[in-house]
Amino acid sequence: MPDYAPRRAALRAALGTAELPALLVTDLVGIRYLTGFTGSNAALLVVADDEYDAEQRTVIATDGRYRTQVSAQVPDLAAVIERAVGPALATRAGELGVGRLGFEAEAITVAGYGRLTAVVPDLALVPTTGMIARLREVKDPYEVDRLRAACAIADAALADLLERGSLRPGRSERAVARELEWAMFDRGAHAVAFETIVAAGANSAVPHHRPTDQELVAGDFLKLDFGAVVDGYHSDMTRTFVLRKAADWQREVYQLVAAAQAAGRAALVPGADLREVDAAARAVIDAAGHGELFPHGLGHGVGLEIHEAPGIGLAGTGTLLDGAAVTVEPGVYFSGRGGVRIEDTLVVRAAGPELLTSTSKELTIV
Amino acid sequence: MPDYAPRRAALRAALGTAELPALLVTDLVGIRYLTGFTGSNAALLVVADDEYDAEQRTVIATDGRYRTQVSAQVPDLAAVIERAVGPALATRAGELGVGRLGFEAEAITVAGYGRLTAVVPDLALVPTTGMIARLREVKDPYEVDRLRAACAIADAALADLLERGSLRPGRSERAVARELEWAMFDRGAHAVAFETIVAAGANSAVPHHRPTDQELVAGDFLKLDFGAVVDGYHSDMTRTFVLRKAADWQREVYQLVAAAQAAGRAALVPGADLREVDAAARAVIDAAGHGELFPHGLGHGVGLEIHEAPGIGLAGTGTLLDGAAVTVEPGVYFSGRGGVRIEDTLVVRAAGPELLTSTSKELTIV
Repeated sequence: MPDYAPRRAALRAALGTAELPALLVTDLVGIRYLTGFTGSNAALLVVADDEYDAEQRTVIATDGRYRTQVSAQVPDLAAVIERAVGPALATRAGELGVGRLGFEAEAITVAGYGRLTAVVPDLALVPTTGMIARLREVKDPYEVDRLRAACAIADAALADLLERGSLRPGRSERAVARELEWAMFDRGAHAVAFETIVAAGANSAVPHHRPTDQELVAGDFLKLDFGAVVDGYHSDMTRTFVLRKAADWQREVYQLVAAAQAAGRAALVPGADLREVDAAARAVIDAAGHGELFPHGLGHGVGLEIHEAPGIGLAGTGTLLDGAAVTVEPGVYFSGRGGVRIEDTLVVRAAGPELLTSTSKELTIV
Repeated sequence: MPDYAPRRAALRAALGTAELPALLVTDLVGIRYLTGFTGSNAALLVVADDEYDAEQRTVIATDGRYRTQVSAQVPDLAAVIERAVGPALATRAGELGVGRLGFEAEAITVAGYGRLTAVVPDLALVPTTGMIARLREVKDPYEVDRLRAACAIADAALADLLERGSLRPGRSERAVARELEWAMFDRGAHAVAFETIVAAGANSAVPHHRPTDQELVAGDFLKLDFGAVVDGYHSDMTRTFVLRKAADWQREVYQLVAAAQAAGRAALVPGADLREVDAAARAVIDAAGHGELFPHGLGHGVGLEIHEAPGIGLAGTGTLLDGAAVTVEPGVYFSGRGGVRIEDTLVVRAAGPELLTSTSKELTIV
């Protein structure tokens, strides 16, 4: 069990820096990060001032369905049971006399904002962005442990399929996807991290293909992009195989992507500019004349969400933090023929990145 | 395959009624409903005027990852490939000279709204709520067919577990949940509709319990709340069993909830006030003196989302529409002892509701 109070203390420190007396948290993932609560309707009021009083005055709100759950998961905070969780806590903030109340501009809708202003017309609502996302970027030891467990499950599940000879001509993408997911559950996954991608032949050129009844055919690429969830933490890994026999063009594109991926991993250094990390891998693909066939960013943060800060791509802003968990996943896609993506989940460390997904990245013919 | 153009025509008619020349759709489920596109980043600009030109000027936007997918899934609309999909289409709306542009106040964040106003400062942005949700409330024959298929899979999966004797003392909640999900996949589910609830003993008193390693024990309630997804359409069913031997209090609470559920189903009449449907079931539980043990609404619409319009509860507004798909799911929960919920998915019809979940609701000892 993680200790949530230090996370709330870190948020209070950030509020102090931003000169905000309180924050209304409405992003459910942020609420889980700060309290452990996993219900589908909640808000959290975090008061920034004096440490001891602040915890006393910090309140979580949820509705009647979660009365038992909130007291079990969040025994250390007062809970308000109310369907309209945001307005309820904004009202509470008004009663506490905070004067100004921060809200999460990326996690409240225009309509939800209107419902807040309706109940606290006299409170100054101050937009914030990414305050909790920034805290979440660096993983604590508990989080790395859970990410490691999720990645190990994905590795083991893929090993199960390889050992059983499940990646073979004649099977459908859908059947392989279901078997891979089942193997992850069998290994202890609490959920799958996202809709499993199994893409055979020309479908492997579609970066985010959904599995179909398409059959695997000898000589085709087979791209698997999948992950497991353990205690809310997501793993993310892509491997691309060739079925039975690899053609020269397939070996070439595979080696190109593998080289780009290695360059991307090597660029994972604390303090590195995010665009330069992307550029390190992209330069390898550009040099081969295939830059336009790599239409997405190099990677993204991963944790309680499958995509979270930082974004490592052409539009990345900022630098890599020591202890961030990220993916490195270049791809080259030949429309109508096939494509290759190779992806790992890693933790950024001063001593060099810690690789959490350990399945081989050598070209594997299955 | 559904025909999407009539759905866009219905939206245009609604825009005409609202005197809006165009709507920027940013809710991904609404975009799927109107176009068939299933990617994770998209926006849709629907222009309301002259029918033929309007379809010509209606545009979908997504990013480079979905270039191939959008042309396959939405061959009948022009596509813009751009990462910032909302601003791209707001700009397009400005170029088309619509003057006023509706946006979905429940499906755009305060930050996203800021990014729109930044690119089209001269366009009047008009908040709308529920325009597409209202269209989605009444299901067309394709949608009812898909809901029926999803419900049939859930029924068959539960029957598989009952036949195999899988609901028995000694097994864990988690193992039962995974087996139920696997059985749904095995029967053709494309996904599970939501995190499967398997709650044994005292856990059955937690309305939204997550499966744990808790073992099933003879004499306990066992509550299963689960569903399958077929082509995006969700089924939703809850059944509560007793393991091995039912005590008198268990029989009493079961019969009470069953009676309330039957009353709720009987109240599903086109045109009925939503609060009165809820009240029909609630009155049965109130009369037994247990009103405070039923802390949630009676039901909700179900379709491309597991929870959609209409909401059938104390705070419901409006009436039941002919052809709406809804759940009826009263529950009575004795904290620390156990609880019962019985839930069906049905389609509202003038001739009486069509029951889609057909598993028996008789008290079943397993």
